[in-house]
Amino acid sequence: MDITFPEINLKAIGIVRNEIKEPTHQDSGDIVSEIIIDSSLTKALDNLDEFSHIIILYWIHLSRRPAPMKVHPRGNKERAQMGVFATRSPSRPNPIGKATVRLLERKGNILKVQGLDAIDGTPVLDIKPYIPGYDSVEDCRAPSWMVKR
Amino acid sequence: MDITFPEINLKAIGIVRNEIKEPTHQDSGDIVSEIIIDSSLTKALDNLDEFSHIIILYWIHLSRRPAPMKVHPRGNKERAQMGVFATRSPSRPNPIGKATVRLLERKGNILKVQGLDAIDGTPVLDIKPYIPGYDSVEDCRAPSWMVKR
Repeated sequence: MDITFPEINLKAIGIVRNEIKEPTHQDSGDIVSEIIIDSSLTKALDNLDEFSHIIILYWIHLSRRPAPMKVHPRGNKERAQMGVFATRSPSRPNPIGKATVRLLERKGNILKVQGLDAIDGTPVLDIKPYIPGYDSVEDCRAPSWMVKR
Repeated sequence: MDITFPEINLKAIGIVRNEIKEPTHQDSGDIVSEIIIDSSLTKALDNLDEFSHIIILYWIHLSRRPAPMKVHPRGNKERAQMGVFATRSPSRPNPIGKATVRLLERKGNILKVQGLDAIDGTPVLDIKPYIPGYDSVEDCRAPSWMVKR
């Protein structure tokens, strides 16, 4: 099969501001972050606060490059290595993170969110509303090594 | 505030193959697609088939550029316009799509999935396992104009 895999250029739409200054495996559930959106895009945030939860796609700018093919899930070396696409490791071929967070407040071009697992200075690529039924799966199967603590 | 929003360069890791040749608002629930992954990344797919559902991030290569700030949800002009970040419109500043799909089969570097709302030839940026509890929200609120049909 003769396939070309195109190159793609993005420009960040925003930047994360929070107290997390270095990569960590810490649970981000309580962390409050601000996302400063490019002010030329402020109008595109209208109506977002009708949703309790939003999806953040962000660029994991400190990820290991080139990405490994296999990783120990959550960096735990006592576990077998897994294919990196079967994990949520930040070190992946295109290091895009996806987090579903609670939207606490929108003021102009600034979003205040809770539960974002990204560090201070992380570039944000996209913001989407979380839609129950579209983004969630009722009847799904995940292996025990991955199920949320 | 003096912030720079960095430019970011990606390379697609895969390409969608299916029967959808043009953009559509059609429900994609039954559509079966193949995702051909760059064969240099085949090992990174190991263990993925331990999950029933996976998340696909893809590049909506035919989206309208530059993106509008406001759109009619699902293209329905009888509805008021909303900020584009409050919708799942394909025309967005960085047109990255996110779909949660059923993984039917993995054979080498080819994934067969059900429910992907991307057309034939769409570049794929990342593949992640769907993790209940991390990717789903129990107690969420979404406006009636957005709740899934």
